[in-house]
Amino acid sequence: MGVVPWWAKPADLAGVIDHTILRPEAGRADVLRFCEEARTHRFCSVCVNPIFVPLVAGALSGSGVLTCSVIGFPFGAIPTPLKAAEAAWVVAQGADEVDMVLALGPMKDGDDDAVRADIAGVKRACGAATLKVILETCLLTEAEIVRACQLSQAAGADFVKTSTGYSKGGATTADVALMRRTVGDSMGVKASGGIRTFADAESMLRAGATRIGASAGITIIAG
Amino acid sequence: MGVVPWWAKPADLAGVIDHTILRPEAGRADVLRFCEEARTHRFCSVCVNPIFVPLVAGALSGSGVLTCSVIGFPFGAIPTPLKAAEAAWVVAQGADEVDMVLALGPMKDGDDDAVRADIAGVKRACGAATLKVILETCLLTEAEIVRACQLSQAAGADFVKTSTGYSKGGATTADVALMRRTVGDSMGVKASGGIRTFADAESMLRAGATRIGASAGITIIAG
Repeated sequence: MGVVPWWAKPADLAGVIDHTILRPEAGRADVLRFCEEARTHRFCSVCVNPIFVPLVAGALSGSGVLTCSVIGFPFGAIPTPLKAAEAAWVVAQGADEVDMVLALGPMKDGDDDAVRADIAGVKRACGAATLKVILETCLLTEAEIVRACQLSQAAGADFVKTSTGYSKGGATTADVALMRRTVGDSMGVKASGGIRTFADAESMLRAGATRIGASAGITIIAG
Repeated sequence: MGVVPWWAKPADLAGVIDHTILRPEAGRADVLRFCEEARTHRFCSVCVNPIFVPLVAGALSGSGVLTCSVIGFPFGAIPTPLKAAEAAWVVAQGADEVDMVLALGPMKDGDDDAVRADIAGVKRACGAATLKVILETCLLTEAEIVRACQLSQAAGADFVKTSTGYSKGGATTADVALMRRTVGDSMGVKASGGIRTFADAESMLRAGATRIGASAGITIIAG
């Protein structure tokens, strides 16, 4: 995409990294370590499962680091009222950002109205919180990625995001570029899944990403 | 365990198989095919993600085949009120059985009270529906498997279940035998994850399982 880099060195990327710990067996100590690392390195957010939102929001209070929660994760296969209830709960507990998984079944079935209504329902429940829609690009065709971006935009989401990190593939520069071309300049694009090094992160940003989701944030900013 | 087999041939196992389709990109046609197969072969249930419960309950109506839904799947990392709301929703939509994922983080943290309360909260929301607790045994130590069984029993669950099928390992005969020894004869034990053949299923039943979860039910009963 020929984006002129705004970063000069690996550590400059900290502010666009969602420092992410989602493995289901993570405990409080693991999550608190991520919060401490995020404060130290000034990551954008700490991204966790809903159960840890109260802990993270408390640990990050006053730090400037945001609290991010996933929703309907990682399958996206719960109905809209339950996704909305989950979003409302995490926001009430202190989440600043909400990363929801797209309704993949309806997407595959071509039920665009259901997909858009699902996102819109969560958006309403988010209030002022930022909403990112995880497309799980490895499961979609190019045409479906384009349609998912358009439906996310129409429903008022703030970001489209590539991957959960728990399917058969993660972010690719081709998918990120396609998402950026589709949504234009008005939405964020978050690349996530398999981003382990500074070079990985840099290539995603050059392709048009404005946010990086990774559990390897420390390695990335060490360059 | 020296269980005397009650089955004479592969097809006899149909009645203990939860015919399972949980991959997140499954659409309505895929799910309806599983319902048709379950009616034909008289599987115990069709097990799906929450979004498909209304479709499945309708398709199976009058067939004698049960509707089973997973809850908090596959991470178990949502708080109890949201798991309970999810359970109440699927039961209201026609689910006869609810397979919830254990609170794995609290389990790892040794917070037994939280783990038990999580199960008890879902049990209350289930009403008369059968509740199975997915331990995700591949992520637990033997001592944790024993404790998870005891907490499930104390909280009033009807079954313990080995695996989601979406982590790094599935059911093993050793884990099934340990679960059966721990819960005694008063609870069901469901083996799930990686069970692809009649021989796999038979070994799980011999180890003490009373239910099999599999997407390969057709292959299993073909022997």
